[in-house]
Amino acid sequence: MHITILRLGHRHMRDKRISTHIGLVARAFGADKLVLDVRDPEVRDSIKKVDNEWGPSLEIEVAEDCMEYIKDFKGDRIHLTMYGININDCINEIRKTGRDKLVIIGGKKVPSEVYSLVDHNVAIGNQPHSEVAALAVFLDRLFQGAELERKFDGRKKIIPQERGKKVIEFF
Amino acid sequence: MHITILRLGHRHMRDKRISTHIGLVARAFGADKLVLDVRDPEVRDSIKKVDNEWGPSLEIEVAEDCMEYIKDFKGDRIHLTMYGININDCINEIRKTGRDKLVIIGGKKVPSEVYSLVDHNVAIGNQPHSEVAALAVFLDRLFQGAELERKFDGRKKIIPQERGKKVIEFF
Repeated sequence: MHITILRLGHRHMRDKRISTHIGLVARAFGADKLVLDVRDPEVRDSIKKVDNEWGPSLEIEVAEDCMEYIKDFKGDRIHLTMYGININDCINEIRKTGRDKLVIIGGKKVPSEVYSLVDHNVAIGNQPHSEVAALAVFLDRLFQGAELERKFDGRKKIIPQERGKKVIEFF
Repeated sequence: MHITILRLGHRHMRDKRISTHIGLVARAFGADKLVLDVRDPEVRDSIKKVDNEWGPSLEIEVAEDCMEYIKDFKGDRIHLTMYGININDCINEIRKTGRDKLVIIGGKKVPSEVYSLVDHNVAIGNQPHSEVAALAVFLDRLFQGAELERKFDGRKKIIPQERGKKVIEFF
């Protein structure tokens, strides 16, 4: 099951850190590709820097036309929105198809077309919070925690500790 | 079980949006109190604005001395860090104590003292990603999804929809 994250509505100055967090969550929680709606070298560089140290994993690309991208995607198209169906009530159904997933994350101004183009509008609770949080919880529920045990083939690797930090570096 | 979130290392300009996302996640995912290590009216105002529309829930305070705050806390003190024990291997033990929780979220420069002051250093996976994501997944696992069905007593309330948006406003 191949997972693509589509980040809509990235605004250069305001959203650099939020979009970077989205990319890092996508990478760490088992997604395969991040698609942005604008080219932002700083976001790409921040994610690539993590890839270089901790292991490559995430393909990044820019979509010329996001609506076409959604229409053309082969698999389940899922829009994360506080207005949608509570994840508690739909995640099992979404997981069991086993098809590739496109997970769409917007900001405040998602075109209304998105709501009708997708297969599922999913709410990580029906309260306002954070697109970063929504993506992480969605992927954690989709993979049922297994994504946090995935192996990364990086220069650095953490050995989990009850106290302090232990990092092995490979040269 | 009363949940307090302690956000360490907030830097005014750089972290406003990230700290606001942390506050909104704390609010939406069932925490009771957010403690910041510096006074930042903008972060407080952003969270209070959501409280005013969607329902009050989160107490916000500033700690004069965070290390004392951690030492004095009565309950389980949990530090979220990529260097800790994978949440998959410790969440059941943490949940079953039923005691109040202090959940500590740092940035890059957490004093090493924190690692030894707490009862648990917990990793939401051992890869770098986002403090916002880490908090959301921790609370979602702690409450096993029940936090996303909590009722908020707000002016606005979403009626979950498969397509589009439905919001009831109370006056």
